[in-house]
Amino acid sequence: MEKNMKAAVLTEKCKIQIQEVPTPRPQRGQALIKVRYCGICGSDVHIFQHGLPQPNILGHEFSGIIAEVGPEVENWKVGEAVSSVPGLSCGSCYWCLHGQSQICEWALQKSYGTGVVPGAMAEYIAVQASCMRRLPKGVGLREAPLAEPLSVALHGVRLSHFRPGDRVVVLGCGTIGLLTTLVLSRSGVGAMHATDPAEGKRQRALKLGADEVHDPQGLSPFIFHQRLNNLGPDIVFECVGVPQTLTDAINYVKKGGQVLVLGVGMEPATLLPMVWNFKEIEIKGSFGMTGDEYDLALGWLSRGWVPVDQVITKEVPLKEIQEAFNLLAGPNEEVKVLIRLAD
Amino acid sequence: MEKNMKAAVLTEKCKIQIQEVPTPRPQRGQALIKVRYCGICGSDVHIFQHGLPQPNILGHEFSGIIAEVGPEVENWKVGEAVSSVPGLSCGSCYWCLHGQSQICEWALQKSYGTGVVPGAMAEYIAVQASCMRRLPKGVGLREAPLAEPLSVALHGVRLSHFRPGDRVVVLGCGTIGLLTTLVLSRSGVGAMHATDPAEGKRQRALKLGADEVHDPQGLSPFIFHQRLNNLGPDIVFECVGVPQTLTDAINYVKKGGQVLVLGVGMEPATLLPMVWNFKEIEIKGSFGMTGDEYDLALGWLSRGWVPVDQVITKEVPLKEIQEAFNLLAGPNEEVKVLIRLAD
Amino acid sequence: MEKNMKAAVLTEKCKIQIQEVPTPRPQRGQALIKVRYCGICGSDVHIFQHGLPQPNILGHEFSGIIAEVGPEVENWKVGEAVSSVPGLSCGSCYWCLHGQSQICEWALQKSYGTGVVPGAMAEYIAVQASCMRRLPKGVGLREAPLAEPLSVALHGVRLSHFRPGDRVVVLGCGTIGLLTTLVLSRSGVGAMHATDPAEGKRQRALKLGADEVHDPQGLSPFIFHQRLNNLGPDIVFECVGVPQTLTDAINYVKKGGQVLVLGVGMEPATLLPMVWNFKEIEIKGSFGMTGDEYDLALGWLSRGWVPVDQVITKEVPLKEIQEAFNLLAGPNEEVKVLIRLAD
Amino acid sequence: MEKNMKAAVLTEKCKIQIQEVPTPRPQRGQALIKVRYCGICGSDVHIFQHGLPQPNILGHEFSGIIAEVGPEVENWKVGEAVSSVPGLSCGSCYWCLHGQSQICEWALQKSYGTGVVPGAMAEYIAVQASCMRRLPKGVGLREAPLAEPLSVALHGVRLSHFRPGDRVVVLGCGTIGLLTTLVLSRSGVGAMHATDPAEGKRQRALKLGADEVHDPQGLSPFIFHQRLNNLGPDIVFECVGVPQTLTDAINYVKKGGQVLVLGVGMEPATLLPMVWNFKEIEIKGSFGMTGDEYDLALGWLSRGWVPVDQVITKEVPLKEIQEAFNLLAGPNEEVKVLIRLAD
Repeated sequence: MEKNMKAAVLTEKCKIQIQEVPTPRPQRGQALIKVRYCGICGSDVHIFQHGLPQPNILGHEFSGIIAEVGPEVENWKVGEAVSSVPGLSCGSCYWCLHGQSQICEWALQKSYGTGVVPGAMAEYIAVQASCMRRLPKGVGLREAPLAEPLSVALHGVRLSHFRPGDRVVVLGCGTIGLLTTLVLSRSGVGAMHATDPAEGKRQRALKLGADEVHDPQGLSPFIFHQRLNNLGPDIVFECVGVPQTLTDAINYVKKGGQVLVLGVGMEPATLLPMVWNFKEIEIKGSFGMTGDEYDLALGWLSRGWVPVDQVITKEVPLKEIQEAFNLLAGPNEEVKVLIRLAD
Repeated sequence: MEKNMKAAVLTEKCKIQIQEVPTPRPQRGQALIKVRYCGICGSDVHIFQHGLPQPNILGHEFSGIIAEVGPEVENWKVGEAVSSVPGLSCGSCYWCLHGQSQICEWALQKSYGTGVVPGAMAEYIAVQASCMRRLPKGVGLREAPLAEPLSVALHGVRLSHFRPGDRVVVLGCGTIGLLTTLVLSRSGVGAMHATDPAEGKRQRALKLGADEVHDPQGLSPFIFHQRLNNLGPDIVFECVGVPQTLTDAINYVKKGGQVLVLGVGMEPATLLPMVWNFKEIEIKGSFGMTGDEYDLALGWLSRGWVPVDQVITKEVPLKEIQEAFNLLAGPNEEVKVLIRLAD
Repeated sequence: MEKNMKAAVLTEKCKIQIQEVPTPRPQRGQALIKVRYCGICGSDVHIFQHGLPQPNILGHEFSGIIAEVGPEVENWKVGEAVSSVPGLSCGSCYWCLHGQSQICEWALQKSYGTGVVPGAMAEYIAVQASCMRRLPKGVGLREAPLAEPLSVALHGVRLSHFRPGDRVVVLGCGTIGLLTTLVLSRSGVGAMHATDPAEGKRQRALKLGADEVHDPQGLSPFIFHQRLNNLGPDIVFECVGVPQTLTDAINYVKKGGQVLVLGVGMEPATLLPMVWNFKEIEIKGSFGMTGDEYDLALGWLSRGWVPVDQVITKEVPLKEIQEAFNLLAGPNEEVKVLIRLAD
Repeated sequence: MEKNMKAAVLTEKCKIQIQEVPTPRPQRGQALIKVRYCGICGSDVHIFQHGLPQPNILGHEFSGIIAEVGPEVENWKVGEAVSSVPGLSCGSCYWCLHGQSQICEWALQKSYGTGVVPGAMAEYIAVQASCMRRLPKGVGLREAPLAEPLSVALHGVRLSHFRPGDRVVVLGCGTIGLLTTLVLSRSGVGAMHATDPAEGKRQRALKLGADEVHDPQGLSPFIFHQRLNNLGPDIVFECVGVPQTLTDAINYVKKGGQVLVLGVGMEPATLLPMVWNFKEIEIKGSFGMTGDEYDLALGWLSRGWVPVDQVITKEVPLKEIQEAFNLLAGPNEEVKVLIRLAD
């Protein structure tokens, strides 16, 4: 192993430098992965724009080849193609003992690339063996990073009250919105509308199973009521997280229905709480995924249920990472952008 | 029947006049009730302060004696002591056909004293026979109006995920907060804390079953975490509806827990949505009650489960209604104030 | 209209005669349908074999053309192609008011062809307009009768705890078992095994989405445990209703899992209840469907989601109905057999 | 410590001998408890009557004083008064990781006194420290054994769909039936009927909160329908486990309701499955309790919510254990019988 490796380091707000940094050593229970692909997540863009914490190597949606196996790691060997769940759970907190490892005490702190533990936008990453997953048949290194956002979508749908036949609206056709659309489309949805300001993304939503798509600009709030059984959607999947879409979700949903919030709203939102009462709605936050759901996502990829080309819209080499983040930080038509770390 | 009656009419913002108005005539399916007691609800105070719509006779928590029976009303006779569910449901909309009559299409529009249909702060009120309830054994005219807010509390608890043994926090010790405290106390709650800025109300919460009470002023956000199993409450019952208590509810609740919103938040609240994700909480609005739950509340009163004197703190004659509303519109130590319409 | 029509009358156990009977007259709120196709349901075969009540015209899965419109029927006209939900619900009982019209007080008593109200194995049937459904785009008279068993399968899945990704076993590959397999396959099932003693039916289950199929004869009880995550199925859909499959369902299901019973078990079953405790399983009975679910089934047919030829395996003219029932009363490879009433 | 101790050993079917056996040594992570009281559970009686496995020291509902602390046990010291959850869970199986430790892979195998691990009907028992519980304020050694059956009842109620206001029937007024009655009574039950053939037990049920009690002999199946809202009970808590009460539970429950099975039915029961369909009922098995629920039960005892004298009906010294089992093996009026191991 080379002593040093190239890594994309967030050095300040909106600034990513390719630096030479020491190649990590696999610790007890870890393997060293030579990263092949790493996706850029919306949360990466958010950290990029707000710049905290620094310096930091981002990236938690990745695939690669095992380059070295650390002490006390069994059942894994050099050369295997793997992807990884995005972080560690402790296995002993209240939530880990109640089937909710996604909100483990360790959540975020021990996730790759979110601040404390270095991420995969680098030539190598040291990963806990318990996080690693062999790529199943039919899943290549290029599509494997999609298992992460797909498992987020699967988690959201599984967490919701969704049952086959339910009528839904999906707000936002970014990666999570599109994959949620896909999951619902393959889960017997009764009727599905989706919204996004970007025309290209709306077209992708149609290809992934939406019955109708809408530009939220100037959209009448009654359209969903009229089209969905004169009741409105049973569930709104909010996949953006900005104040306007949160407000829309609450306004659109059927009385007695559910708003499932997948979008992570990092700015304060001003809402009118009495609507929650008058409509007796439920608002439910969704976060991450369990390891089982990550495996489920790999299974969907393996069954060929994911039209990968509708989701991966761009692939750039490591040296163009700054431009890729610049692009994603503004209005754009991209969905998932992959960083190619090696060939 | 006298042609005219005395009624408390909201004529403008913060102004209630005792006026002579025509005594209503019971229409088909209605009875005329000579009102004995009518409680002042928080929503009445809100309408009083904001003044819409006018002119209006408020009041939907009441008891009285049947004075006249309208056409096509069977099984009821003059002289019977009754109370009433606070409004009509249509019986044929989606929600009425799904056990959710509380959010019927007619909700509010056909409720007594909320704008369209005159309320009970008057000598007489015309009430749909299907809304009327005979007072069960042990329930007098004075305590009967409590069936309305008690059924609101019962509805909230039944709507929540509450199971015997759960640990909860109740925010607010007004009528709804105290009755929610009572319901939980008699429903096998595992541990219960309550908060209110008014010392007297906190003392009542202790008497109604809270294990501990707190002044929200300067309250450490970690207290509930520490006292409740190092996890925080399974459910927070928000019984105020102002932005601060909504924020508190979200901050206090256990990760994966539920915020059950009974308080009707009429002013916009600025919240940080990402907390909903990171904690994967559920926020659920509660509204009104079903007819079955109103009957259940009468049953609780009948079994003697409600310490009425902890909840009814004042009783005033009709002519003092302006002063009563003035009092309730500011900080005060009152819980339920009854208007006495007749002796 | 001819005064008389041909009808298949169950005259005694295992005996169906083609008789001339009076053509029914559409009563208030009814239309007269000239029946085109009527499916033979497992319950029809059961009544055929046990012979009660008699005389009786069976048949509740049908399609046809409106031949006459009775008094007070609006929005329908002669010549429209329709199918029908299999019976009337009262609209006012506890269950109708709680979204459970499938277990309405009237259930069965007011269903077509189950004893009290004549069924559709006749040239004409008088049907309540509220039961009728226009055939949506892409749904012909031949496939329309499938909406009934498909809605039974949809109801069962919606009633269960099923979520996308769950692992299941379907016991029985008759019409209900196969359609349940189809519904699950299109609802994001994580893994699905099916069983049936008939090789041909197992092959159909594979085509409708099962991952693996098994002959129950000599099947090791541990196979599902091993193949399904070393846990066993999250849910077993029991679609037969005989004692052996009920026992199997309980033995196969994961500890803490659910047995959803779609098969109607008309003979007593001897079970070991302590297994319910030790495994903490839930056994849930399913019955019929709601009107909304029937509409949903028509929607699935309209979207082309149902491989009709895997389900309809035979079509016979009315005059061969006795032979068709004889065939279905024994071991056979048929799935849905249609009676053709007109051309 | 004496090298030998007295223990009640089940030597053959229906035969318990007081033998001198080696006093157990506390292993790593264990403490040795000098047993003070041990309750006789229905399952003990069942093992007594059927005699397997042998030889065996029964008893899993007990209290005592720590006599010796084994290696690697912290936070416990000699002389402390304790009770214990009835067995060990592994902490790492699927169920332990999903909040269902009661159905852990180890369930029963590592429970005290059920066959593999010696029980508490002896002068001493070696107990895993993680199972031990300090007695909270107000809970003496005599009532502490009740925490075990009380937690079984709490588990059953928590596992059910019970919500305050629900109407229920409890079948059987033995220890579990009575404690379930108590839990429901303190959990806001709307209406509660109980049944038992023994007059004395029925009287106890009334004292513990049942509204009405019935002798099942000759009981009309319609009584519960009539008395409970003309619908029947929302939930039937089956606390016997014999074929007749299982049949009764299914017949009594409301359409769409739940049968929660706490009684462990060790003999086969012949049931008519189509009733499950026609009524669309749910049958749910309950087993044991979680550690949290055991703590909850201690909390109920500590709050004084359990009228101990209605439940503990007899206390006998170790030497009379054979007679106590003989008594319980036949029809009798006892509820909980305690074995007194020391004074």
